[in-house]
Amino acid sequence: MEVVKTIKDVRAAVLSARADGKTIGIVPTMGALHAGHISLIDRAVADCDFVVISIFVNPTQFGPNEDFDKYPCDLDADAVICEKAGADIIFAPSASEMYPSQNSTWVDVDGITDHLCGASRAGHFRGVTTVCTKLFNVVCPDQAFFGQKDAQQAIVIKRMVADLNMPLEIVVCPTVRQQDGLALSSRNKYLSDAERKDALLISKALKACDKAIVGGEYDAEKLVALMKSIIRGGAVDIEYLSIVDTRTLENVSEIEGQVLVAIAARVGKTRLIDNIFVDLNK
Amino acid sequence: MEVVKTIKDVRAAVLSARADGKTIGIVPTMGALHAGHISLIDRAVADCDFVVISIFVNPTQFGPNEDFDKYPCDLDADAVICEKAGADIIFAPSASEMYPSQNSTWVDVDGITDHLCGASRAGHFRGVTTVCTKLFNVVCPDQAFFGQKDAQQAIVIKRMVADLNMPLEIVVCPTVRQQDGLALSSRNKYLSDAERKDALLISKALKACDKAIVGGEYDAEKLVALMKSIIRGGAVDIEYLSIVDTRTLENVSEIEGQVLVAIAARVGKTRLIDNIFVDLNK
Repeated sequence: MEVVKTIKDVRAAVLSARADGKTIGIVPTMGALHAGHISLIDRAVADCDFVVISIFVNPTQFGPNEDFDKYPCDLDADAVICEKAGADIIFAPSASEMYPSQNSTWVDVDGITDHLCGASRAGHFRGVTTVCTKLFNVVCPDQAFFGQKDAQQAIVIKRMVADLNMPLEIVVCPTVRQQDGLALSSRNKYLSDAERKDALLISKALKACDKAIVGGEYDAEKLVALMKSIIRGGAVDIEYLSIVDTRTLENVSEIEGQVLVAIAARVGKTRLIDNIFVDLNK
Repeated sequence: MEVVKTIKDVRAAVLSARADGKTIGIVPTMGALHAGHISLIDRAVADCDFVVISIFVNPTQFGPNEDFDKYPCDLDADAVICEKAGADIIFAPSASEMYPSQNSTWVDVDGITDHLCGASRAGHFRGVTTVCTKLFNVVCPDQAFFGQKDAQQAIVIKRMVADLNMPLEIVVCPTVRQQDGLALSSRNKYLSDAERKDALLISKALKACDKAIVGGEYDAEKLVALMKSIIRGGAVDIEYLSIVDTRTLENVSEIEGQVLVAIAARVGKTRLIDNIFVDLNK
């Protein structure tokens, strides 16, 4: 598996692929790859001729009290996964390669970044949108692949790409879950066995919400109460539990059209997020 | 002269030129083209195979009390100028084409936008960097051409392109002046004959400063006093008169290396800017 560390080297590889008439896909990751990432790589390999996996634990999207320093990292294991999945190259830059000392430019998406995770993680989405803009400008891909698990991130990136006329398509792929429902996350590694059991209540609550909506319950307040009653069965500290409009990310009182049901919660010291997308138009 | 109004049409024209192996240049303008713009177009035509002139009076870079509503506009005259200068296509989008209602993404360059024009024109550079990002993403040029007359704008755009790894080169072209020294500006049209005479003091002061530096005067305070004494000879209301480091745009006390000597002033109701670039390393 070819692993390059510099912008110059990844650009040269992409340029060479372009010269061969190949389409380019990128899967931006922070490494610690799991089956969720693999599903994104699979989709990228299916859709594009040349697939770049970026592995970069982006410091600007972590707050001062977050887990940047202990974020899991294993480039060798990640390289094996990328190779097996059929990716063409890994771009794993250093922090100084991505952010030289003079760096002072930021990309901000207003409004939709104030809600959900944005409410508690000041500056998080500014870090995400800025690093994605940089990666897109470095790789110039036709398509970039993100997971529905980070629903707000996918919505924010799509808004940014549309607003700034970036010449690429954002593809959002379904959340991958373990058999018992737990959404895959690099942060699941932090969970003890007891915590993992409690964490399961999050996906259980979302599943119950989905079932209730299918059964005709459209009152958001009642659905939120239902989910809270399930989550309260364990040691789960809810940060938000919201049913929001998928365009504005503002709370809805009644389910109609497309809504996102999203949860962030702490299980022990680990912050987990999960969500389901509900489309009544379908 | 081909004039297109939509992002789709200009992208199709650029794509076709790219397919022919042509390099692409863009000259971003707000129209009301004068010899200063023509010098940019000349340079673009000399350097690139296919030259796009964007003409867009960008609302987001004007403050609420600025001259957006009366900014000069004559697309037919501009088209004649572009044709004569050898440009290939004019991209003249509407405000709603560039900023659909949902637009909520902004590009910000911190620090250097706090000084000079940024100090009095809140949000101006955010509008400039955002619209340039959009134009660059629409046209995907190899090079973009800006005038030294808008020195801070050129420095901010260069910083943005470097920070966000945008895949293009920014080319900054010398300020074009009338024979008596007045820097060309679309806003010169606002000046009465008497005001034009007063406006001349700005370039005279800059010229005197340059001469004094060549003569060995490196004390910024004395140079500023010299320029103020010249400008005070007429009805010119100085907004700033600064000698700054070209990287940080912070005031220097002593001339060394590269500095920018920059003036913004009102003559009657018209706000004018001018500057000189001094490089003691040369």
